[in-house]
Amino acid sequence: MTYNHRIQYYETDKMAVVHHSNYIRWFEEARIAFLESIGINFSEWEKQGFSSPVVSLGCRYLRPMLFGETASIQILVRSLTAAKLEFEYQVTNPDGVLCCTGTSTHCFCGSSGQPVLLKRENPSDWNLLKAAEEPLPV
Amino acid sequence: MTYNHRIQYYETDKMAVVHHSNYIRWFEEARIAFLESIGINFSEWEKQGFSSPVVSLGCRYLRPMLFGETASIQILVRSLTAAKLEFEYQVTNPDGVLCCTGTSTHCFCGSSGQPVLLKRENPSDWNLLKAAEEPLPV
Amino acid sequence: MTYNHRIQYYETDKMAVVHHSNYIRWFEEARIAFLESIGINFSEWEKQGFSSPVVSLGCRYLRPMLFGETASIQILVRSLTAAKLEFEYQVTNPDGVLCCTGTSTHCFCGSSGQPVLLKRENPSDWNLLKAAEEPLPV
Amino acid sequence: MTYNHRIQYYETDKMAVVHHSNYIRWFEEARIAFLESIGINFSEWEKQGFSSPVVSLGCRYLRPMLFGETASIQILVRSLTAAKLEFEYQVTNPDGVLCCTGTSTHCFCGSSGQPVLLKRENPSDWNLLKAAEEPLPV
Repeated sequence: MTYNHRIQYYETDKMAVVHHSNYIRWFEEARIAFLESIGINFSEWEKQGFSSPVVSLGCRYLRPMLFGETASIQILVRSLTAAKLEFEYQVTNPDGVLCCTGTSTHCFCGSSGQPVLLKRENPSDWNLLKAAEEPLPV
Repeated sequence: MTYNHRIQYYETDKMAVVHHSNYIRWFEEARIAFLESIGINFSEWEKQGFSSPVVSLGCRYLRPMLFGETASIQILVRSLTAAKLEFEYQVTNPDGVLCCTGTSTHCFCGSSGQPVLLKRENPSDWNLLKAAEEPLPV
Repeated sequence: MTYNHRIQYYETDKMAVVHHSNYIRWFEEARIAFLESIGINFSEWEKQGFSSPVVSLGCRYLRPMLFGETASIQILVRSLTAAKLEFEYQVTNPDGVLCCTGTSTHCFCGSSGQPVLLKRENPSDWNLLKAAEEPLPV
Repeated sequence: MTYNHRIQYYETDKMAVVHHSNYIRWFEEARIAFLESIGINFSEWEKQGFSSPVVSLGCRYLRPMLFGETASIQILVRSLTAAKLEFEYQVTNPDGVLCCTGTSTHCFCGSSGQPVLLKRENPSDWNLLKAAEEPLPV
């Protein structure tokens, strides 16, 4: 899926480019939209006591992005196990130039914060994610 | 009380000055520190089910502030009634020049979000705030 | 004009509602989109050395807003003089309930930061804004 | 060096913990303070036309952090070459428990954004950084 984010003035810094912390926020925007696009409602997860906290992040900044540009964030599920979910992100500018790449890894937690297996607790959503998985070619 | 905030790079925008939304956040930092300075622990309030949401804000921007400067935020209680609390803020730069002034008004809410009278629910903290009140001279 | 903003997870705080500072950022998003809608490109202004800093802000918070909701921000020009521009904002939730109202006042600055008269420096953009003005009925 | 950051209310999200994007901002706070502690003024770099943009980031989230806690961010220079600088971060809570680890890699740019060798352009600051380098034991 490709998620579009219009870059806001308040996302720039005194180098006149997007501050690097904002890409991490766009990844979150893209995740929520991606889950929705495959039929998973994140707010519904939270009502059921689920959460899916970030356990690790990686980000490479290739080119600065500017106020007023629309960032296109391509997101995919790189891997899913019973307990862990990994996303990949590619951010391009309006000229199609790759500006940033990233990954995020997530675990699944239950209502008291304990780790749970999504596959067991919510097999239907796990199946939706599994169907979307695009593993790296061996 | 005067609360000091070191201005961070991520608080600037492409005009190379502090983005105006950040002053609102510094007001919050100053409030928490002020409450603590008169013996009120905001986290304790939350544990007891109290909250004190912002119901209105005003802000005047007089001069830009810069990365690396320390902003001095003078905060005082301008008025306190049984149900409403008003703070005033004056932000000066390291040269003592006034850069921003503001006000915020807060109500008090109970554990289910309903408005409550702080004076009745928590008279000791209400008294601490009342003792700090600095009403405008008539 | 009505500008829509999808509320993001990172805009919430531990009260599980939108943090009050974010509305100030949405006002900015709405301004940029509004200017664009009447034919003014803010980035173009900046290239010409113009800026239009916020000189004052006011905000009233009526009801909390939630993650996942789309905030509708109605924006209009309340007044325009040769040197000063005032916007008004009304933020409603998806049920059409008014959650927040605000105002912002802006001056105009030239390339070295000095105040300028937009009417003299850029009469065509001043006219575009003037045509959009909706003064309060007397 | 250990840099302390008091966790603010506006840094929390609806999970009632610090939003993960804020750690990236604390890393920046720690970097600026670290450079200052070894005699490098970041604002001075910018006046001379230098910058040191982030080219990559990594972050592992081990435990959530809470409003009101002070985060202790231990920062060190893991490696420095003529063209590249790598920092490492360890964030602990007030009980000394490790909550987050991270790395950031930076290049050096000149006044028109082109990559430069810090060692050649500013040998004295390069030497200050080199003296602080703590390479991993082989």
